[in-house]
Amino acid sequence: MVLLEFSMTPLDKGVSVSEYVSRSLKIIDESGVDYRLNAMGTVLEGEWDEVMGVVTQCYDKMSADCKRITCSVKIDYREGPKGRLESKIASIEEKLGKSVKK
Amino acid sequence: MVLLEFSMTPLDKGVSVSEYVSRSLKIIDESGVDYRLNAMGTVLEGEWDEVMGVVTQCYDKMSADCKRITCSVKIDYREGPKGRLESKIASIEEKLGKSVKK
Amino acid sequence: MVLLEFSMTPLDKGVSVSEYVSRSLKIIDESGVDYRLNAMGTVLEGEWDEVMGVVTQCYDKMSADCKRITCSVKIDYREGPKGRLESKIASIEEKLGKSVKK
Amino acid sequence: MVLLEFSMTPLDKGVSVSEYVSRSLKIIDESGVDYRLNAMGTVLEGEWDEVMGVVTQCYDKMSADCKRITCSVKIDYREGPKGRLESKIASIEEKLGKSVKK
Repeated sequence: MVLLEFSMTPLDKGVSVSEYVSRSLKIIDESGVDYRLNAMGTVLEGEWDEVMGVVTQCYDKMSADCKRITCSVKIDYREGPKGRLESKIASIEEKLGKSVKK
Repeated sequence: MVLLEFSMTPLDKGVSVSEYVSRSLKIIDESGVDYRLNAMGTVLEGEWDEVMGVVTQCYDKMSADCKRITCSVKIDYREGPKGRLESKIASIEEKLGKSVKK
Repeated sequence: MVLLEFSMTPLDKGVSVSEYVSRSLKIIDESGVDYRLNAMGTVLEGEWDEVMGVVTQCYDKMSADCKRITCSVKIDYREGPKGRLESKIASIEEKLGKSVKK
Repeated sequence: MVLLEFSMTPLDKGVSVSEYVSRSLKIIDESGVDYRLNAMGTVLEGEWDEVMGVVTQCYDKMSADCKRITCSVKIDYREGPKGRLESKIASIEEKLGKSVKK
């Protein structure tokens, strides 16, 4: 199962890009893929083709009206079951012996 | 003000690395720098030297007993006030017209 | 046209991972997609589906016998012609007024 | 010894950012730290403080006249000697049994 975090940003739209980010989030939210938004990106969980398919949809939408885009993707594949959006954080809190800011 | 997300992982400790990640999180949590943990990394907010100082402390600790480490860092600098750990997400939700999974 | 840099590393094979990296490079080299290898990753140039297809092939190969994989991908899309594997560097050297280490 | 690849890009200067990238490269080139430029970033080799010091200098320069900056950094620490700017590529070519595009 794959955790994939990505952020996708137009370079030709000035300092405020939340309009474009929110269009991506609409695609993510409607995809049915489980996800969590944070201040630096969105983390998706699913099979490779599933999560990459969502990133591709966001790219298709953004590249339709942006001349330059920067995108970073980080993937953590681990053999085994789903649920790591929550379990990775829980595992760290357990080892730390306290809850942390999420 | 800088948002900095990073993850730091030993390559020589096998598939389960949460013990090492929790040691980094202890450093982060005790640093006084504002942060949020997600399933793929930790987002810090502060001045450049402040957040980079925390990453350096985590590196010093991990490199003391790991032979190989991979680390990825993503930085978003924006002129202006603090508070973007929350306000970036709020801005996207506002444009989207609904709240999302965080 | 898209420039895509990626690196893909098993976490369960110890400190020496060049065997696995070389298997990815074989896939890249035989794909017909233009590329450049550097010390931290490989930069591909092509259309989105083309370069993502190569990354997916590398993932399929590596996940077949690795239990945990970390992968980072950075994408620079720019409207316009191919050739940026060379032209981006040339443009920087021109502005700098000297050639640099490549 | 650390390999550090980074790219630093203003978000408020439009699609052509090579002027800003070349200013960073000037700092890198004059730092005395060994490096290689590729189409997606610059790879530095040195001790942690040394390479991070160069990234900080580039940030100080760019943040002086850019309102928003995105920066990605990838680090590969490995216990042992210097020289991996060349040796990592050589090791892959050796395993592959052929030279590749660099």
